Amino acid sequence: MGEHVTVCEVGPRDGLQMAKGIMPTAIKSRWIAAIAAAGVPEIEVGSFVPAKLIPQMADTAEIVREAVKLPGVRIVALAPNLRGAQDAYANGAHRISVPVSVSEGHSRANLNRTPGEQVAEVARLVAWVRAQARPMEVEGACSTAFGCSIDGVVPEGAVVRVAEGLAAAGVDSIALADTVGYAHPAQIKATVRAVRAAVGRRFDGLHLHDTMGLGLANALAGLEEGIRSFDAALAGLGGCPFAPGASGNIVTEDLVFMLHSMGFTTGIDLEKLIAARAVLREGLPHEPMHGNVSKAGLPPTYRVAA
Amino acid sequence: MGEHVTVCEVGPRDGLQMAKGIMPTAIKSRWIAAIAAAGVPEIEVGSFVPAKLIPQMADTAEIVREAVKLPGVRIVALAPNLRGAQDAYANGAHRISVPVSVSEGHSRANLNRTPGEQVAEVARLVAWVRAQARPMEVEGACSTAFGCSIDGVVPEGAVVRVAEGLAAAGVDSIALADTVGYAHPAQIKATVRAVRAAVGRRFDGLHLHDTMGLGLANALAGLEEGIRSFDAALAGLGGCPFAPGASGNIVTEDLVFMLHSMGFTTGIDLEKLIAARAVLREGLPHEPMHGNVSKAGLPPTYRVAA
Repeated sequence: MGEHVTVCEVGPRDGLQMAKGIMPTAIKSRWIAAIAAAGVPEIEVGSFVPAKLIPQMADTAEIVREAVKLPGVRIVALAPNLRGAQDAYANGAHRISVPVSVSEGHSRANLNRTPGEQVAEVARLVAWVRAQARPMEVEGACSTAFGCSIDGVVPEGAVVRVAEGLAAAGVDSIALADTVGYAHPAQIKATVRAVRAAVGRRFDGLHLHDTMGLGLANALAGLEEGIRSFDAALAGLGGCPFAPGASGNIVTEDLVFMLHSMGFTTGIDLEKLIAARAVLREGLPHEPMHGNVSKAGLPPTYRVAA
Repeated sequence: MGEHVTVCEVGPRDGLQMAKGIMPTAIKSRWIAAIAAAGVPEIEVGSFVPAKLIPQMADTAEIVREAVKLPGVRIVALAPNLRGAQDAYANGAHRISVPVSVSEGHSRANLNRTPGEQVAEVARLVAWVRAQARPMEVEGACSTAFGCSIDGVVPEGAVVRVAEGLAAAGVDSIALADTVGYAHPAQIKATVRAVRAAVGRRFDGLHLHDTMGLGLANALAGLEEGIRSFDAALAGLGGCPFAPGASGNIVTEDLVFMLHSMGFTTGIDLEKLIAARAVLREGLPHEPMHGNVSKAGLPPTYRVAA
């Protein structure tokens, strides 16, 4: 029996958010259903942010309400603040992911707050969530944990401080995000070790981008350090705001292929997952779609562990 | 001072061999010169095979004679047999790479010989090379060492047997090739350990393809097992004969970016290497060119170890 790795599909949130086109709500719901039907256990389906800021996310409430009806899949929404958390709760999300930028520049540009102020917001938000009738998980996501397009190098100590702040704020889980895709495997290993040493196994997630082509090598580095939860986007959707044409999130299909090949289980049917690309293509006819396994086809050596 | 890794550019051989178009000889020479000028220490520039079989390699003799005039770079040619080795020697190659397919199916299809017969050919070839006035290195390359599009799974024991045969035949160095790109990181690690245990440090090279998107993750796995020599192709040139549109060799630029980011030295100027893509584009206007670093641009966090 292979060891289990949890894959969270973030294409409907982080992928679509960066896309040029806007996917129609009905197709988005069908796409999310196709991903769930492939056995993906967690899907981040949208972001509770003002529609003026990110028009692609304007239908998040409706999308969440539809998605939580799907059997056997945890529905995640991004919520940058208490207001977003309240919206996510009202629409039935199972989990929210709350971003805290580790770098000052990204934090100010994205959230108009310092990292410390955003950690304080997370504490308020957690207190509100804990006071509600229904449980909703809160993940704290350390953005720009491996480098920032504005501030450049992000010191490991700063990542540890934000993670410690999130742990103190009472989040259920902590993830590190390579938001702009600058990480390399040695850095992943060192940072994972440092954050694990500080906050323990509450930290178990990596959100990686493939900007420089190192996405799966970075995932491997995380796996080797014991990380068992990864975000990824179908077809590597996502792009990069500062580099037009650059790759986005790591490709879910290729990540799952690597995991299965190495003997990990994910519960995902890779052929069905690849088939879900067709719905994505239907909803965004002009968006670049990445991924190697879907082009090459599954090799005769491919096996899934029991 | 960072640890050194040797990168061998194989685009002019393995890349062009799979290309649909034929690069004009003058541009090919200019391309090789541009790669050498970027500080790449080894370039596999062609293949001494009948022009009828691989027309893209028809000018290999001329290309080798020009390339060996370039300062500070080792010029490698593929030679599938004694005849090829003699041609490589006559034209001044510093090293030849002699392929031995580990899988029976690939060996018969590609060389019309069993793996054992090809190992015997390598022994004859090495004896001939050693009897010449000028030294010429001989590398034995174990093709289909991680899987075969014809035979499927390739047992680790078969890889070890071919490597032992090559060691007994007296080759200077041994490399393992993921010819079709089916390898995964755990397999790379296990096979590298097994072959190292059998033939020692004479084995120090990996030739990886990115067919399934795992190319750099596999390179990382090799690095972690102590491998310090990697083949790669500019722009990931190469494709895959059985999967039209699939990726080829691992992308040299992205590999070098990963190595430098991790603190390894290669002697390569990454900006000059990326600039050499323009000559490739000039010589093959319609070939798909891969690579993430060249699209995204070098990040502000990029540093090269002294």
